[in-house]
Amino acid sequence: MSSLFLRTLRDDPADAEVPSHKLLVRAGYIRRAAPGIYSWLPLGLKVYRNLENIVRQEMDAMGGQEILLPALLPRDPYETSGRWTEYGDNLFRLQDRKGNDMLLGPTHEELFTQLVKGEYSSYKDLPVILYQIQTKYRDEERPRAGLLRGREFVMKDSYSFDVDDAGLEHAYQLHRDAYQRIFDRLGVKYVIVAATSGAMGGSASEEFLAECEVGEDTFVRSTESGYAANVEAVVTPVPAALPIDGLPAPTVHETGDTPTIDTLVDWANGALDGEYTAADTLKNVMVKIRKPGEEWEITAIAVPGDREVDFKRLEAAVEPGDVELLTDADFAANPGLVRGYIGPKGVQESGFTYLADPRVVTGTSWITGADEDGKHVVGLVAGRDFTPDGVIEAAEVRAGDPSPDGRGVLETARGIEIGHIFQLGRKYADAFGLDVLGESGKPVRVTMGSYGLGVSRLVAVLAEQMHDDKGLVWPRGVAPFDVHLVIANKDEAAVAGAQELAAQLDAAGLELLFDDRKASPGVKFKDAELLGMPTVVVVGRGWADGTVEIRDRSTGTATAVPIADAVDAVLAAVRGEA
Amino acid sequence: MSSLFLRTLRDDPADAEVPSHKLLVRAGYIRRAAPGIYSWLPLGLKVYRNLENIVRQEMDAMGGQEILLPALLPRDPYETSGRWTEYGDNLFRLQDRKGNDMLLGPTHEELFTQLVKGEYSSYKDLPVILYQIQTKYRDEERPRAGLLRGREFVMKDSYSFDVDDAGLEHAYQLHRDAYQRIFDRLGVKYVIVAATSGAMGGSASEEFLAECEVGEDTFVRSTESGYAANVEAVVTPVPAALPIDGLPAPTVHETGDTPTIDTLVDWANGALDGEYTAADTLKNVMVKIRKPGEEWEITAIAVPGDREVDFKRLEAAVEPGDVELLTDADFAANPGLVRGYIGPKGVQESGFTYLADPRVVTGTSWITGADEDGKHVVGLVAGRDFTPDGVIEAAEVRAGDPSPDGRGVLETARGIEIGHIFQLGRKYADAFGLDVLGESGKPVRVTMGSYGLGVSRLVAVLAEQMHDDKGLVWPRGVAPFDVHLVIANKDEAAVAGAQELAAQLDAAGLELLFDDRKASPGVKFKDAELLGMPTVVVVGRGWADGTVEIRDRSTGTATAVPIADAVDAVLAAVRGEA
Repeated sequence: MSSLFLRTLRDDPADAEVPSHKLLVRAGYIRRAAPGIYSWLPLGLKVYRNLENIVRQEMDAMGGQEILLPALLPRDPYETSGRWTEYGDNLFRLQDRKGNDMLLGPTHEELFTQLVKGEYSSYKDLPVILYQIQTKYRDEERPRAGLLRGREFVMKDSYSFDVDDAGLEHAYQLHRDAYQRIFDRLGVKYVIVAATSGAMGGSASEEFLAECEVGEDTFVRSTESGYAANVEAVVTPVPAALPIDGLPAPTVHETGDTPTIDTLVDWANGALDGEYTAADTLKNVMVKIRKPGEEWEITAIAVPGDREVDFKRLEAAVEPGDVELLTDADFAANPGLVRGYIGPKGVQESGFTYLADPRVVTGTSWITGADEDGKHVVGLVAGRDFTPDGVIEAAEVRAGDPSPDGRGVLETARGIEIGHIFQLGRKYADAFGLDVLGESGKPVRVTMGSYGLGVSRLVAVLAEQMHDDKGLVWPRGVAPFDVHLVIANKDEAAVAGAQELAAQLDAAGLELLFDDRKASPGVKFKDAELLGMPTVVVVGRGWADGTVEIRDRSTGTATAVPIADAVDAVLAAVRGEA
Repeated sequence: MSSLFLRTLRDDPADAEVPSHKLLVRAGYIRRAAPGIYSWLPLGLKVYRNLENIVRQEMDAMGGQEILLPALLPRDPYETSGRWTEYGDNLFRLQDRKGNDMLLGPTHEELFTQLVKGEYSSYKDLPVILYQIQTKYRDEERPRAGLLRGREFVMKDSYSFDVDDAGLEHAYQLHRDAYQRIFDRLGVKYVIVAATSGAMGGSASEEFLAECEVGEDTFVRSTESGYAANVEAVVTPVPAALPIDGLPAPTVHETGDTPTIDTLVDWANGALDGEYTAADTLKNVMVKIRKPGEEWEITAIAVPGDREVDFKRLEAAVEPGDVELLTDADFAANPGLVRGYIGPKGVQESGFTYLADPRVVTGTSWITGADEDGKHVVGLVAGRDFTPDGVIEAAEVRAGDPSPDGRGVLETARGIEIGHIFQLGRKYADAFGLDVLGESGKPVRVTMGSYGLGVSRLVAVLAEQMHDDKGLVWPRGVAPFDVHLVIANKDEAAVAGAQELAAQLDAAGLELLFDDRKASPGVKFKDAELLGMPTVVVVGRGWADGTVEIRDRSTGTATAVPIADAVDAVLAAVRGEA
């Protein structure tokens, strides 16, 4: 440590909010070079490489073949796939000296598809799984939390190529298993959640989320089963239809100035018999939806009045279409839509689409707008008085909602996406015409999977999940060094003994961080805690009595062992036998 | 090989001119993604990783500390150093979503200087040597020859920080030695040449050039000593001054229409006594030179008439200034300069600078321009009739010139730059104010070295130096696999035996490429030669007689060994014992 390029900091960096960011900077693992762009210092790089190797080992073990594509890419393939524009401002674009448009790759579906098309031509060539561990670029609007959301970062991205759906499902399962092995080896606490496919297009998709309070992703899980899902992917359990017979006919009421659900419920509890809550009302949120290549279409999103429309869920539901709220101008142009008093009748009679929450089943009775200023209708029964044009998953998901698998209720939690596996299907094969000659002699379109894993992000995730108020607490196999040996005794014999012990531990094949600095024991112990090696060996006061101390960073236990037994004891500790 | 992502090509790629490029593409090691931008396929990536590890081992062994900086960088530090503009079109520039100027790092002096400034503050912290193995970007005007000159490539770049010149020289020597170890381990044929410092600024500098016919760099070396240098760095041996006494006085002659050296020599051989060659004339090439921050200054470059001015040498001589030939407008504005008949008198009387080749020593006598149309002066003696304002190394270097070290003569050769070591000095420390507190308690400006080594380029250099007309010939330690095992016998027992042998070689710790394809023996042998593993084991016809064949790719020798001895024999071959 007297020559290691490392300076620990006493204070948290001003721009750091989350523990992993603070600690990785304070402990001298990383330094910021620009917003969302970091340098790896020696200790950080060692952690990163350890992680990279674990990922590589498991990818190789499942039959993946490693290659490495460039980060600086031509525009053309991304134009072909449509992502040159779809990525919007998230893409770093540039021109070369000849004026050619280029980009810094955010993910490489296009290039892998082209590559396989260039090399392979027969069903006999498949299946193949190719992967790379590579620096990627995304111009995040709000880079944050150090390595957790950066603009330059390292991902393992892999791609599977198969002739049929069964092959794709197999490759998907191989990745799912490999990811579990990787995260289990690292000791990450994570959940696998059903996910929507985001901008990637395609079908089956799951995310691996590291459980983390500071995570940006909210997910829900069942209190009683293993069910977990991204909020966007929650499928609302559909209640059974109710009998219509005997329900009273709908009645229109003057409700006065009641443009909000609250004012409407107040009116109902004053004017009608019985007790009403927002759940008895039907809220009609007006939006416009544009499917790719089509015109904007005005649409009502009907949800029970006690729930908001969750715009992220709505966006996921209409993907790959776009969705926007209606503007004042839109309302002005459509007088059939009476703001604050919109009902299904007005929407459908104006020729617009009426999409309802899955809870709006036949036989449910609602208080909703009567399409006239100051008027609402009471007892409007779905399946009798109105029939939605379709169902949409847009209502917010709440803790306490029944779990979609029928077991328990949902609770919400936060996580950090560390892996994402997609069954892409034929989207990219279609875009690039990736066919192989099939067994029948006819061309077969290839089906693909795409699988990401955030390698540099995992460094921060581990720091986030494994630290205490004194510093980092690295798991074995990931820590930059196996052992941190501290000289905490100025006595010449102790110093010489520590050097001898260091040489012995080194000869025993251990990776050793040796604190040979002239600093005080207090400074050295604080640094040892901050840096977080799993085993700390102290040559201190006990030396005179013939002992050294072995500390376990994780449990905090300290054991004095005779000097003669020190090497064996440290080896046992490193091997997890102590 | 039945599942390896590899397709070899029968034909050379259309865009490939040099052998390494052709072979690496044909053998499926790399694929082009864009001009000067390549993808590594599985075999290529393995070679690249092997090289990278050898470089890393030697850098670590000499005490370098590995870190990793980003490739996407802010403009600011490059503005501070002046390189944001100096790099010109070679720099990939871009803007992020907020309009901030950024660049893709071509080399990282700026960032390392800033980093050390941020962490270190005392002379006790130094020396330190930091390095990274990292993807770099240069927007080459003419990317060529595959990996030899690409726009995205991997370099090992390191930087030394010292408080004094002795420290810098030590760090420089450490790098020089480490580079020699690296290139020796790889078996590269290379020379170390004295180099100018190029755009990097600074003083002592050497290049490591791999000897290669297709190389872009010309260098010279002595036929008799170890002297070697970049042409730009050759220092002309200065001849001894000659006695002036007794030399005839200069005479001006009407030489007619003699604006060129050839016409002038023809005139002299007709009009004067004796035999004259171009070496007897003095050619005055008019240029303008601009030192940084100053105005253009008109200057004559005087060289013996039998030599051209080598513009690259001239540029190196005036660096960091710029140099350009005089334009017609410049001549028109300066009637004292009579084109075709310029002499030292006219130049100096016009107030311009007259710089002469080192060979123009006192006592040498010249035929040169008399500064009047159609007139030359004969017998103009340096040190008597004119005195140059200075000396400049701008004349071309030719094979047969005396070696600057006085031993032998120069011959020219071509090479590829694989390493470059610089004593940068304080250029970047000055730009960024990198001081440390010295032993005396006063601030000391840090002195730096910068050391590059082209890792991805080395893959191509090895392919260039180590191939034959059948394909690649990798050295051990670099080859993607130790052994290439070919089944060349359809007999079931032979196939089973080959699989058994493969398992045994694998268990013995060898990296094995196993050709289990159904292709013909001929196709397989051709591929084995193209791919270039050092040892090829063939389970072929001999199987029935109880033998397998061990081929050495480099020497072409083939040895039949009894099946029972095969593993030991292969191990011996791999260890270089066979």
